[in-house]
Amino acid sequence: MRGAVIHAPGDVRFEERADPVIEAPTDAIIRLTATCVCGSDLWTYRGVDPITAPTPMGHEYIGVVEEVGSAVGTIRPGQFVVGSFFASDDTCEICRAGFHTSCVHRIPIGSIGSQAEYLRVPLADGTLVATHELPSADLLPSLLAASDVLGTGWYGAVAAEVRPGSTVVVVGDGAVGLLGVLAAKQLGAERIIAMSRHESRARLAREFGATDVVAERGDDGVQAVKDRTDGLGAHSVIEAVGTQESMMQAIRSARPGGAVGYVGVAHDVTLPGEELFYSHVRILGGPAPVRRFLPDLLDRIQAREIDPGKVFDLELPLGQVAEGYRAMDERRSIKALLWP
Amino acid sequence: MRGAVIHAPGDVRFEERADPVIEAPTDAIIRLTATCVCGSDLWTYRGVDPITAPTPMGHEYIGVVEEVGSAVGTIRPGQFVVGSFFASDDTCEICRAGFHTSCVHRIPIGSIGSQAEYLRVPLADGTLVATHELPSADLLPSLLAASDVLGTGWYGAVAAEVRPGSTVVVVGDGAVGLLGVLAAKQLGAERIIAMSRHESRARLAREFGATDVVAERGDDGVQAVKDRTDGLGAHSVIEAVGTQESMMQAIRSARPGGAVGYVGVAHDVTLPGEELFYSHVRILGGPAPVRRFLPDLLDRIQAREIDPGKVFDLELPLGQVAEGYRAMDERRSIKALLWP
Repeated sequence: MRGAVIHAPGDVRFEERADPVIEAPTDAIIRLTATCVCGSDLWTYRGVDPITAPTPMGHEYIGVVEEVGSAVGTIRPGQFVVGSFFASDDTCEICRAGFHTSCVHRIPIGSIGSQAEYLRVPLADGTLVATHELPSADLLPSLLAASDVLGTGWYGAVAAEVRPGSTVVVVGDGAVGLLGVLAAKQLGAERIIAMSRHESRARLAREFGATDVVAERGDDGVQAVKDRTDGLGAHSVIEAVGTQESMMQAIRSARPGGAVGYVGVAHDVTLPGEELFYSHVRILGGPAPVRRFLPDLLDRIQAREIDPGKVFDLELPLGQVAEGYRAMDERRSIKALLWP
Repeated sequence: MRGAVIHAPGDVRFEERADPVIEAPTDAIIRLTATCVCGSDLWTYRGVDPITAPTPMGHEYIGVVEEVGSAVGTIRPGQFVVGSFFASDDTCEICRAGFHTSCVHRIPIGSIGSQAEYLRVPLADGTLVATHELPSADLLPSLLAASDVLGTGWYGAVAAEVRPGSTVVVVGDGAVGLLGVLAAKQLGAERIIAMSRHESRARLAREFGATDVVAERGDDGVQAVKDRTDGLGAHSVIEAVGTQESMMQAIRSARPGGAVGYVGVAHDVTLPGEELFYSHVRILGGPAPVRRFLPDLLDRIQAREIDPGKVFDLELPLGQVAEGYRAMDERRSIKALLWP
């Protein structure tokens, strides 16, 4: 089969890779219907995360089950499935508590590479969720979004304790931040302040439910939030960037007793203990346990209650995956969908 | 009147201070029945927090109301009252959310000084809680503990999300840590692991409900917790020290999806963002909003369900306040009660 392999920063190639096979009895092989490029792939593409050898890329996927191992019970060939970017057993104590990305048997799909024609999915019963029926073509982008960015934005909103009537700030206007807006709206937020200075992203944020768009950043961004919340700050803040500035902006935008859900992958971030102590802000982050939310999210998508697929503003044949990376790196595209 | 005034590190004097008077119509004046020395007073006593001028000390208190201002409605002269170490209005949005120590009108009692014969309490209606009747003498130490250390340990347990059946770790065996053990027990924890290497403190921890006492610290302490929790870590960790080592030990002792409630006043603590991100541990700290818990805590004490006053292992006349500081500084005493 063919798939995307990164050789060096900026050098993603579409090339021949070994066909995946069942390696463990809990594996499934799926034929991909669609995959995509993630904002977190850009850390590698830009050389921030080191590349020591040619490496298959990608961790988001939807597709049709081709084959299952002998120990797979609920997932069957022919099913249309969506999975999380981490394989998980869904049975250990940590999964049962809803933190599948810390499953005691977790395997990152990024270490296997889903930007390809086929994908081996470990722990298939615990990882994959099947749709009720074969979905119609117009639902495919939204189902693909559920594999990571929708689930990550949703986790950010849940970690930020968004409740009916909440005032919510979203720091970051990438796909995850925009879908954090969508999640906050679905969870009943009354006011959603999206931090964005890009017209097309701000438009999508409003479409997803943002009531305010604020262009200021850092301390000015914090002040703009305070000005809109009687000087108190927001109940909930979703952080979807992962830099020192964005984390401090998020914490300072929350009111005492409020919460920050941080889902941008933290890079070189250190938090000042004394400021955090006196802030009275609760924080929870980490790789989103998307699997916890998948059944609910697939229901909402199939019922056409939400349309998270709108974050894909570029669609390419998988063979043009390198252009997908370039377009996102240059911020010409929010998120690139790839058709195998 | 007379009260404690600190002049320099290690130099606490019992001397003449001005009698307090009603300054604002929301003030009350109370005659102190008892007060005490706090672990956090030692930061000043040891010169960690600078002393720029002679400063009245103390922020814990119980007593009888002598006089109230014209705007005080529910608190009346003659009532026996317990208050938090921060005055709060109990009506603003932040107080209504339970974070009274971030009240928009908050005033630290430490800036007034409760180690004295009389105390002016601002925002009396919002700050003070009256007992059902004049308490018997044997309840006084427990009621005094509610003013700070019990409420702080309780907040630590609530912030650490202790629930029935939880496994809880308590880092720190001072009065707050020990009362964190008591709080965890009351909130239904099944297993409580107290980190202590002092025999008398460990004994009290067991009396308050600890099922395990672990002497190891730092990475060894973390490993000891992992060994007792199937390698996963605890559901809840109460941090009651406030140093870099104790914070990292607390975070690393919690399982993914677990929570840390940190109530040691953070001094020179920085948290590594990436480690915290991947830990999947939720953290909440800050000056405990004791006022939130006071009505419940006073009920439990008056019903003799809990006996937090046991943390006082030294009782002195207020005139010997300097000896109270010395005994706690030298760790000869867990906590010193002072009788005016």
